[in-house]
Amino acid sequence: MSITRLQEQGKKAKQASYELGKLSSIEKNKGLIAVAEAILIQQEIIIKENKKDIEKAKDAGISGALLDRLTLNENRIIAMAEGLKQIAQLDDPIGEIAMMKKRPNGLQIGQKRVPLGVIAIIYEARPNVTADAFGLCFKAGNAVLLKGGKEALYSNMAIAEIISDALSKCGLPKDGIQFIADTDRSTTLALMKLNKYVDVLIPRGGKNLIQSVIQNSTIPIIETGAGNCHLYIDEFADLDQAISIVINAKTQRPGVCNAIETLLVHKAIDKSKFLELVEKLESHSVELRVDDQVRKWVPRLERSTERDWDEEYLDLILAIKTVSSLEEAIQHIHNYGTGHSEAIVTENYTHAQKFLDEVDAAAVYVNASTRFTDGFEFGFGAEIGISTQKLHARGPMGLKELTTTKYIIYGTGQARM
Amino acid sequence: MSITRLQEQGKKAKQASYELGKLSSIEKNKGLIAVAEAILIQQEIIIKENKKDIEKAKDAGISGALLDRLTLNENRIIAMAEGLKQIAQLDDPIGEIAMMKKRPNGLQIGQKRVPLGVIAIIYEARPNVTADAFGLCFKAGNAVLLKGGKEALYSNMAIAEIISDALSKCGLPKDGIQFIADTDRSTTLALMKLNKYVDVLIPRGGKNLIQSVIQNSTIPIIETGAGNCHLYIDEFADLDQAISIVINAKTQRPGVCNAIETLLVHKAIDKSKFLELVEKLESHSVELRVDDQVRKWVPRLERSTERDWDEEYLDLILAIKTVSSLEEAIQHIHNYGTGHSEAIVTENYTHAQKFLDEVDAAAVYVNASTRFTDGFEFGFGAEIGISTQKLHARGPMGLKELTTTKYIIYGTGQARM
Repeated sequence: MSITRLQEQGKKAKQASYELGKLSSIEKNKGLIAVAEAILIQQEIIIKENKKDIEKAKDAGISGALLDRLTLNENRIIAMAEGLKQIAQLDDPIGEIAMMKKRPNGLQIGQKRVPLGVIAIIYEARPNVTADAFGLCFKAGNAVLLKGGKEALYSNMAIAEIISDALSKCGLPKDGIQFIADTDRSTTLALMKLNKYVDVLIPRGGKNLIQSVIQNSTIPIIETGAGNCHLYIDEFADLDQAISIVINAKTQRPGVCNAIETLLVHKAIDKSKFLELVEKLESHSVELRVDDQVRKWVPRLERSTERDWDEEYLDLILAIKTVSSLEEAIQHIHNYGTGHSEAIVTENYTHAQKFLDEVDAAAVYVNASTRFTDGFEFGFGAEIGISTQKLHARGPMGLKELTTTKYIIYGTGQARM
Repeated sequence: MSITRLQEQGKKAKQASYELGKLSSIEKNKGLIAVAEAILIQQEIIIKENKKDIEKAKDAGISGALLDRLTLNENRIIAMAEGLKQIAQLDDPIGEIAMMKKRPNGLQIGQKRVPLGVIAIIYEARPNVTADAFGLCFKAGNAVLLKGGKEALYSNMAIAEIISDALSKCGLPKDGIQFIADTDRSTTLALMKLNKYVDVLIPRGGKNLIQSVIQNSTIPIIETGAGNCHLYIDEFADLDQAISIVINAKTQRPGVCNAIETLLVHKAIDKSKFLELVEKLESHSVELRVDDQVRKWVPRLERSTERDWDEEYLDLILAIKTVSSLEEAIQHIHNYGTGHSEAIVTENYTHAQKFLDEVDAAAVYVNASTRFTDGFEFGFGAEIGISTQKLHARGPMGLKELTTTKYIIYGTGQARM
């Protein structure tokens, strides 16, 4: 029954995507502004529905960070509306002719940027993702099929309905947003196999969600997320710079994917400077897990295990490993990195270039914090997530990554010989 | 047991990919030429091994086109070697800096073209794909994990060994090509889930192979292939031009994906010209399956069924459907097209632009045959296949589509606020 409903929603989204693909930037921006205003005007409805989610969550014993993520208040609703207005300000990537050339036979072949079509997004507890993901996909001319976490069901349904109504009032296709209200796992699985109507599936959430999508989806996906990021302090590093970058990359916001999880240190590091680094990390409440070499220097520190090299703590914990060479550092990153963000601190030109060349990750840094891997910091003006796969998009994804291209060919009657 | 072997091959390919990523164009071109020459010098070995495959195939009752595809002779081996030499002539896409900019905080952020890493290719009976796919992937700096059809096992193993040896003799990583000799289905399934070592999987073959990969792979794939292509003769078409394009698009090589399968005709078409087209198609031995309107004009023709609109005949068969408008033609293509190649013949400017804008396919044509959707015809100098998905690559894929990018960031000690 619910699968039939899913099929219908997919079909509606596909049909709406053809309409959305034809809209001008002016029409899309008008729609985004109208949606932002509708959200502000109807914020009481959203807050009322959000309260239902919060009550349910509290009854289920949910508290702390998860409850906070679920909660909408006036400020958060204003931020949601502001986000949509900012998306309206961004350049529209659709319609750009990336290339056009004339072939010897007179055919004029061009490559034109077009929407992906229908984008499905599976996400977790944050209800603001409903407006945010809609906004980015819509600006790039796509229809969305949204499946949010069951904790935020009432909030998400309210937001999606307000969006749909606002589009409809502007004369825009209200079916451009389809919210999947069914929270059955079987429906989620069916969504992951809805190849007939969905062009791309993007999971936004934790490791388990992403793994489930990788294992089950038959739709092309964009893998976002896991960041087991490293910082390597080379033997030729400016150690004061290294210390300030390590502190930033580990402590400025430890719960996010671009924070570092393992520090690699060349064995020849100045011992007193290393002790200064350890002290500073500890004064920032960072728990350290270190190899035998480091324990020779600071015996009181906890010994690391193989498991530490693999772990994305997303917390104030840092593994430290010493290496004998740049090559050993790169090999460690090959073995344990997740291809997200990797950094070297060095004053040596050859080492800097070698690290940039050989480390296989979405973003590779010399003498800067990994915390910069972010669509806003990269100047995209928006971000739908950070891709850690190599197909289609790698690194922070902005509007352009929510598009594809098609070849357009102008002929004068050409037939192939 | 064989899964262990597959894991080992994956690991070797991954390690080789790091070496391949560092090679200069000069080294890669030297490798390609050396491989081409080794293939020519050792052609007797290849032909001897190929004879074993042919004997086995004959014993299994295989004949006709399939047996022909399997067969290698001196000319085909020369063509294989020539293909590799041509790849050596192509521009190397690796290392290009697609974009570099300075951010307000002084970070210099660039986007650099790099190899994908390890590409797995699953293909069918043609043994020349072994050399061809290796050559393209190698030039773009990738390692390959090849799984060919069991019919060509001896030929493929011989070719892969010659390639590996030739690389080794040039001082290049011989593990850059891994041929999977195990023909068990369980090994193929395990390959489709070898996410740890494989970055991208490309199926090259028929519908069943592609569907199996879509259903089973957890690795990002590039879907190639199915082409249910249409040509629409608009009410404002130059009908002589339309006739010559239809004949080319249907009959020049009916067995390939960019040939047309359904002809859409505006109802207002000049009847005598339409009869001329029918006659010409029949004189090219094309079997027609037509709707009721066409049967009113030519009652002896076979009536089409719903199934005909869905079918990729890959044969001298053409479905013909009449439509009342351009919009109806576009909607039919939305409903039944596979997003490969679609064409309109028209002299009307607005109709031409509308068709180019609204038809959702890898290649959309005005007044030209769909048969041009091809890497060589598009001027790429090579082709690994034609992508019909929207992620990463759409349309003919050349060397550039076998690469990805990474962000390289030059800092001076920046930490995030």
